[in-house]
Amino acid sequence: MQMILEQTVKACSPWCTTGKVASYIPELGKADTMALGAAIADVKGNIYTAGDYDQLFTMQSISKVVTLSLALMELGEEIVFSKVGMEAVADPFNSIMRLEMDKPHKPHNPFINSGAIVLASILPYSDNDAKMDAILDMTRQLTGNTSINVNKEVYMSEKFTGERNRALAYFLSSTQGIDGDVEEILDVYFRHCSMEVSAKDLAVMGATIAEDGRNPYTEEEVLSPEICRIVRALMVTCGTYDGSGEFAVRIGMPCKSGVGGGIMASLPGMMGIGVFGPALDYRGNSVAGARILEMLAEENGLRIL
Amino acid sequence: MQMILEQTVKACSPWCTTGKVASYIPELGKADTMALGAAIADVKGNIYTAGDYDQLFTMQSISKVVTLSLALMELGEEIVFSKVGMEAVADPFNSIMRLEMDKPHKPHNPFINSGAIVLASILPYSDNDAKMDAILDMTRQLTGNTSINVNKEVYMSEKFTGERNRALAYFLSSTQGIDGDVEEILDVYFRHCSMEVSAKDLAVMGATIAEDGRNPYTEEEVLSPEICRIVRALMVTCGTYDGSGEFAVRIGMPCKSGVGGGIMASLPGMMGIGVFGPALDYRGNSVAGARILEMLAEENGLRIL
Amino acid sequence: MQMILEQTVKACSPWCTTGKVASYIPELGKADTMALGAAIADVKGNIYTAGDYDQLFTMQSISKVVTLSLALMELGEEIVFSKVGMEAVADPFNSIMRLEMDKPHKPHNPFINSGAIVLASILPYSDNDAKMDAILDMTRQLTGNTSINVNKEVYMSEKFTGERNRALAYFLSSTQGIDGDVEEILDVYFRHCSMEVSAKDLAVMGATIAEDGRNPYTEEEVLSPEICRIVRALMVTCGTYDGSGEFAVRIGMPCKSGVGGGIMASLPGMMGIGVFGPALDYRGNSVAGARILEMLAEENGLRIL
Amino acid sequence: MQMILEQTVKACSPWCTTGKVASYIPELGKADTMALGAAIADVKGNIYTAGDYDQLFTMQSISKVVTLSLALMELGEEIVFSKVGMEAVADPFNSIMRLEMDKPHKPHNPFINSGAIVLASILPYSDNDAKMDAILDMTRQLTGNTSINVNKEVYMSEKFTGERNRALAYFLSSTQGIDGDVEEILDVYFRHCSMEVSAKDLAVMGATIAEDGRNPYTEEEVLSPEICRIVRALMVTCGTYDGSGEFAVRIGMPCKSGVGGGIMASLPGMMGIGVFGPALDYRGNSVAGARILEMLAEENGLRIL
Repeated sequence: MQMILEQTVKACSPWCTTGKVASYIPELGKADTMALGAAIADVKGNIYTAGDYDQLFTMQSISKVVTLSLALMELGEEIVFSKVGMEAVADPFNSIMRLEMDKPHKPHNPFINSGAIVLASILPYSDNDAKMDAILDMTRQLTGNTSINVNKEVYMSEKFTGERNRALAYFLSSTQGIDGDVEEILDVYFRHCSMEVSAKDLAVMGATIAEDGRNPYTEEEVLSPEICRIVRALMVTCGTYDGSGEFAVRIGMPCKSGVGGGIMASLPGMMGIGVFGPALDYRGNSVAGARILEMLAEENGLRIL
Repeated sequence: MQMILEQTVKACSPWCTTGKVASYIPELGKADTMALGAAIADVKGNIYTAGDYDQLFTMQSISKVVTLSLALMELGEEIVFSKVGMEAVADPFNSIMRLEMDKPHKPHNPFINSGAIVLASILPYSDNDAKMDAILDMTRQLTGNTSINVNKEVYMSEKFTGERNRALAYFLSSTQGIDGDVEEILDVYFRHCSMEVSAKDLAVMGATIAEDGRNPYTEEEVLSPEICRIVRALMVTCGTYDGSGEFAVRIGMPCKSGVGGGIMASLPGMMGIGVFGPALDYRGNSVAGARILEMLAEENGLRIL
Repeated sequence: MQMILEQTVKACSPWCTTGKVASYIPELGKADTMALGAAIADVKGNIYTAGDYDQLFTMQSISKVVTLSLALMELGEEIVFSKVGMEAVADPFNSIMRLEMDKPHKPHNPFINSGAIVLASILPYSDNDAKMDAILDMTRQLTGNTSINVNKEVYMSEKFTGERNRALAYFLSSTQGIDGDVEEILDVYFRHCSMEVSAKDLAVMGATIAEDGRNPYTEEEVLSPEICRIVRALMVTCGTYDGSGEFAVRIGMPCKSGVGGGIMASLPGMMGIGVFGPALDYRGNSVAGARILEMLAEENGLRIL
Repeated sequence: MQMILEQTVKACSPWCTTGKVASYIPELGKADTMALGAAIADVKGNIYTAGDYDQLFTMQSISKVVTLSLALMELGEEIVFSKVGMEAVADPFNSIMRLEMDKPHKPHNPFINSGAIVLASILPYSDNDAKMDAILDMTRQLTGNTSINVNKEVYMSEKFTGERNRALAYFLSSTQGIDGDVEEILDVYFRHCSMEVSAKDLAVMGATIAEDGRNPYTEEEVLSPEICRIVRALMVTCGTYDGSGEFAVRIGMPCKSGVGGGIMASLPGMMGIGVFGPALDYRGNSVAGARILEMLAEENGLRIL
């Protein structure tokens, strides 16, 4: 597996040149286009790594898996899905149109920005710091890495340039989709998007979700099997923006991507895979990262669909 | 004319019961549903009044006529219409969808909220206070009333509850439709919407625009004929929200309404008409106010279409 | 007036090169890009002409004025506006989206294709030939030209290539917007769009509508003043596709255009103007024709807004 | 397994009362609301059945799996996905809006009506009868049932009432999405939607797709593993209309539903499941049928997500 992983990362490296690093948040624009790394954590606790597997980057949308898990754990399925839907949309992740067109104005799923902002708003903690502590704690348990933290530069950069997310949040506020101070809610959102991880962390996180909530590395029970099933299903149908359908066809495993360049994949009962490559396609998914997963699926049968 | 006006106001008074005062801004919700007044200012400087013609209320969207006029005067037609369009939309005045759907994301006209926010942003003054002074000054010249001012309670109420306008403004900011601090720009917008006038003030304002920019009361030249033509044309095609087409058919004169309950009408070469009645129809136009204009048009031929 | 008209047509002729003839109906594509003509019919029965004022072309959307007038006459305002609205839309004339988005699925106004198809469906005659006879008869009365007829080549060309209109009509049929055989209804629509007129015919038609329904040339009473007011108002707000707002600002008179290159304008109490120039702008309005109207408005005060 | 299946069907039977049979096609409206049946075909060729497992009903949208498979086999992946996309949409299956809004106007996936109409148009056979023969032949191979045929009453009923599909098809024709005679293309579409099967047929079909193309009953190789992977992935992401996300969460297996009341599920390497219950939820999926699949997933672990 170690050799396969190394060869795959090497073979996919040229794909980095076909993408572009995210530019809408200035800090993200500083990433190295050619960086590429991957890690596999199997359910027995073995970890295989290749390339820039330990380079840190921000989770961005991958952190939505954490807030969804936390919300399901603290509030239960019924409350969570009364606030956000379960359906994919064909619109970009930051579309307001979709939200305005539908009545009621309920975000279609927890992985588009509006859905994640709603989740950030309903987490039942006393204040923003408590919310963020709980999110960090959950992320550390899922990855088994207690040193995970928020990257302050990226967080501030998001906060100062997040006009589109402000537009979404104020729209939600105007239609009772969220309750409370909009800037406070966005602050949690910007912070959790800015948590820093490595491909190796994502691999363990994927394995924990693959193993129905038991971290195979720390052997801790982090989530219930029911929550993991919901998370994996939503990763398949809407985990990679408006490219989720193509991911299901080409890669065939539950995946969640972020514009920081990471993709976390979770093969039930088998393993978690983390990839990192900040060069993105036009939809916001890591180009070379997706190619690594596709090769693993195609040539090694690592797929469930 | 005095008698006609009095009879018309009286005859239309029952229509007040068919509407509802605006509720989305708490301060507006306090208005008296049954209030109704009207004034006519002809181009010779005569003024006729009836009912609650001197009751004060906030201009709301009628103030967009002022900012459009000021922008045209200070920046010229070419710059203004490179920033906002000239076309009516079938969507409500606060729709973001329309803005997101079109490329480029340019507000369709200066009388929908997004268009007026763009105009507030480009007025060429050193700071917000200077902008607001210029807007107040222009409003006083158009109405011939030097005591016009901002209603602070309504202004604060708008500022604290304007989430939908914030959503629009942040969307515009995220797509380079506006430049600069969003809250600052919105502050000007909320302030000019909160300027307080009477139906009589609106009548004189309408007469000034009808008389190609010359205030028939103060005899001051306030605007150029070209600007007045543009303003009148846009009042016909998009002056009364998504009811503009019906206004053109039923009333047949250039009108601009506001959710404060006012309507300002302008009959070129003839007169201005101001009406006030805070009970609104579902589109945000004064029900009884529209009925007054319709009766004046039908029974006295006061129409141009 | 004769001299003004001739000079205006000559001065606007270079604008022909900036437009393109309609290509979506093959027969229309054969038109001469450089053709340009105009005619004015005043309310005293005088007619002034210039350029290709007597060249024949198909009415296309201008015929919607005829069917609207006929529907209002035969069925009354209430029935007509229970079937189509009065509001402009910001979408192209053949948009289905707009129709699908709104509930109920009622065409926004009688001058977009869906609205005109609905009108064609409700005209109360025994069969298609009777409908078409009534439409032709009304057109002949409005223009005072008894030789007006359908251009069979254009009609067949529209019929064979009208997929987008078929899409609209079947959508309307599926939502109970129209009742009856779709192809039969479309047949009437395609036929009335293919009626052939000259700029001179349009001038007299415009004058008849300007004169509250009395044809100043034949002295016949064709329409009621009420119907003419409705028609003029809708010409202002939605007579020239999604360019109606700009027409109101630049030209300031009620106008109805067609992709055959014609524009019919109607100045209440003053005159009708017909222009013909098949080179169109991207919205489907005659480029040089619009320029002729703009010059007449600007330099000779022929405007009402 | 036999007992489990019988108990599950019995337990889910009360759910029939919560749905409604499809009414937009008159023939479908005649179905028995309380009918309910299910069948499981495992990859070893065993078949378990319960309830109305052998009642015939029309495939409707389930037939889109057949045309997609056939198109992939005859034309290859590249051509097929140059004509239709792979992404789920949040709009109903017959939405035109989505199609109009996107440029190019390419159907989002092969399982919405517009996508299936495009596939019907590109199948490379000499005429409609040859197309239909190929589709029938493929369906018979997938189900191992050589007596499958078109229900003529339903086919004629669809043909006479299919206005919405006509609207879609003419829209596609007007934007070069389909080429050729629209009514001919629709005829194939209406015919393949009207093929009649039983729940047992769907179980074998699902097993064939689960077994990478080998019919475990007839032992015939019908499709390639690559095609089966694509089909299964699209079944997960967009197989059950705008309820696909919820199906993935609640049921967790690739499913394809039809408004005739059938659902075909395919568990890779394990089994196919066919259910039949014509009482539908508001999205068009069998209510009790979905409940059967959910119970099998929940209580017997028959899920892959």
